Amino acid sequence: MEPGPPGSSGPVEPGPCLSGQRGADHAASASLQSAAGTEPGRHSLAVAAVLPAGGCGERMGVPTPKQFCSILERPLISYTLQALERVCWIKDIVVAVTGENMEVMKSIIQKYQHKRISLVEAGVTRHRSIFSGLKALAEDQLNSKLSKPEVVIIHDAVRPFVEEDVLLKVVTAAKEHGAAGAIRPLVSTVISPSADGCLDHSLERARHRASEMPQAFLFDVIYEAYQQCTDYDLEFGTECLQLALKYCRTKAKLVEGSPDLWKVTYKRDLYAAESIIKEIISQEICVVMDSKEDNKHVGHLLEEVLKSELNHVKVTSEALCHAGRHLQQIILDQCYNFVCVNVMTSDFQETQKLLSMLEESNLSILYPVVVVSVHFLDFKLVPPSQKMENLMQIKEFSKKVKERNILLYGLLISYPQDKGFRNTLKIIK
Amino acid sequence: MEPGPPGSSGPVEPGPCLSGQRGADHAASASLQSAAGTEPGRHSLAVAAVLPAGGCGERMGVPTPKQFCSILERPLISYTLQALERVCWIKDIVVAVTGENMEVMKSIIQKYQHKRISLVEAGVTRHRSIFSGLKALAEDQLNSKLSKPEVVIIHDAVRPFVEEDVLLKVVTAAKEHGAAGAIRPLVSTVISPSADGCLDHSLERARHRASEMPQAFLFDVIYEAYQQCTDYDLEFGTECLQLALKYCRTKAKLVEGSPDLWKVTYKRDLYAAESIIKEIISQEICVVMDSKEDNKHVGHLLEEVLKSELNHVKVTSEALCHAGRHLQQIILDQCYNFVCVNVMTSDFQETQKLLSMLEESNLSILYPVVVVSVHFLDFKLVPPSQKMENLMQIKEFSKKVKERNILLYGLLISYPQDKGFRNTLKIIK
Repeated sequence: MEPGPPGSSGPVEPGPCLSGQRGADHAASASLQSAAGTEPGRHSLAVAAVLPAGGCGERMGVPTPKQFCSILERPLISYTLQALERVCWIKDIVVAVTGENMEVMKSIIQKYQHKRISLVEAGVTRHRSIFSGLKALAEDQLNSKLSKPEVVIIHDAVRPFVEEDVLLKVVTAAKEHGAAGAIRPLVSTVISPSADGCLDHSLERARHRASEMPQAFLFDVIYEAYQQCTDYDLEFGTECLQLALKYCRTKAKLVEGSPDLWKVTYKRDLYAAESIIKEIISQEICVVMDSKEDNKHVGHLLEEVLKSELNHVKVTSEALCHAGRHLQQIILDQCYNFVCVNVMTSDFQETQKLLSMLEESNLSILYPVVVVSVHFLDFKLVPPSQKMENLMQIKEFSKKVKERNILLYGLLISYPQDKGFRNTLKIIK
Repeated sequence: MEPGPPGSSGPVEPGPCLSGQRGADHAASASLQSAAGTEPGRHSLAVAAVLPAGGCGERMGVPTPKQFCSILERPLISYTLQALERVCWIKDIVVAVTGENMEVMKSIIQKYQHKRISLVEAGVTRHRSIFSGLKALAEDQLNSKLSKPEVVIIHDAVRPFVEEDVLLKVVTAAKEHGAAGAIRPLVSTVISPSADGCLDHSLERARHRASEMPQAFLFDVIYEAYQQCTDYDLEFGTECLQLALKYCRTKAKLVEGSPDLWKVTYKRDLYAAESIIKEIISQEICVVMDSKEDNKHVGHLLEEVLKSELNHVKVTSEALCHAGRHLQQIILDQCYNFVCVNVMTSDFQETQKLLSMLEESNLSILYPVVVVSVHFLDFKLVPPSQKMENLMQIKEFSKKVKERNILLYGLLISYPQDKGFRNTLKIIK
């Protein structure tokens, strides 16, 4: 459950995109474009997303609508927006919120610096909210920054763990079939009650599926379906794929999804989401050093030892130099844990460089970033007073960057007294 | 989501039961017995439970079958057994486990002192496991300690949050209708795929329900159904209510259940279960004092202040005297947090009494019990050395009871220096 592979090109040519995007996944791009019947290089598939976020979260049992409930001090909806924003080929994200939550939503967008978000007013039902979002994307909107997409994704604000691969699958399938949606096996048997509250019949579990999100549609298909939709369906319907079927005779392609596509509905789901987010965040550590070319750089040794000691953690290393482009990518991919190895000077130059990059990136807006600054002191050469001075310096840095939600820790290793890195690991772990 | 009201009589007369059970819920008992057509006092409804626990937990993604996954260092199945054991009118609990897990299961029963548990060998499918459990309860078992129940409950080992009230409802309904089961509203729309992996049709969410546990049956009905059952159904069926319908023409009564009846299926469910368990455990504090009759007892003041400061916590108070019968009940009901107020002497007599009761009760086998021992010292009268001595004494106690999973903390309040309890609260909270 990593944050998702960067650089899958999705259904567009590598074009104007977030800076630092790694090279396109040419195979996927080419196969999609041949399916679209266009020549590579000529055509981009315009994709937008609509997020109904107007629910009141009754089943949660708390007054706050669930999409605004906090997980690790950040509203749930922000995590979902983060997941969608990371997919560079989703051009616009239209969120439908109730009038009374409009200001809250704007402040969330502002605070967490979400991009490509447009807000529309939600309706009284989920279908009406989605319709509202689709209208904003339709061609006949004057003075709108939004342009009509060819494919529109529909996704819930309360499903934060959506990844690029399933989005690509449903969009690709929608392009071909007109509609597509993620499905999951049923966990419970589904039954049909009779009027007297007794069992009428039960359904064969294996023959059915749970319909989840994301879903995707050719915009014209789903927009037409909503325009044709009866008030009854707008009021009581729960399934967009069903609208496409009923009003446009479009049979959606069903795409098997991962277990992580579940919807936060009950309080226990908030707990589960928090645990999963913590798990994701703790799964990557990046060792940063001034230069990677030096094979003997102690950072390489640290990387090896960390890899062997921390089995479930992805350990990478990056260099600060070369305008730190690769490091920029690591930051963009939202690694939150860094170990910065300072060898050049005693004034933590490498760490200061890393901290500047982090502060510029705004990564820590989303979640605290941890930086362990490692510094070596030759025990024989460096007097205790110098050590104290170094410690105080780190403390000063720490205080300053704490305001930017960066947690800086210092690790001073005096040698040759310390025997290698295994002692170090006891502290870092 | 409290551990459940003690003393609901369930469908039996208050009879041989766990010591300390509070008085019967006469209304429920009487209404059930009149439904059964018997005179109150003459008849007890014999109820047993069967727990299929032979699954391998594939969907969890870890090698350990989910029912044996630990939550707070205790296997999930132990929580479920704890929930069922607390219902004194369930006479026998038959658990079906695979041969290879038989020893593990026995050691769990031993370690956590579960009672009234019998083990049978699971089958290769859930239905076969349940059948195995039913056979053990049937009349024709020689040398069996088990007696045939009139009503049998079927429940999953991986649903730890079952409470007495829903068990009573399904058993009562089963007595009347022959079969009954808990149901929940659907969270996702259910769809039916066609052979080509596209949407064939979707089901109206409001017209269906998810079938959950517990379920209950007249023993003869469900046992007959299993005996008549085809191999195909035993192999592929997922719904016990369906067997009762198909083979015994018995239409189950459907009982609305709470959100907590969900099944631990995926890793996120373990996280959610852990959070819920922690929440339950932290929801009750009991203030223990030597005597409750003394209105001026400082314990009363503490109770009031705690109640006003900790909104979501149930705060009770109990006396150590009178053979501590009420306190025994509090312990039986599994309150895990105690504040013991010592006023009589300087040697923590009250706390020592409480610790003895706790050690006898075995409560801490299930989960650590926290005791905050509060002791007052008259600042002017008591020299600092006495204070130190008291602290050391608490440390000694702590060390000793830690082995029994009791976490003892000392709180020495010197007066008149400390201004009341609000300072105290900062420490306890």
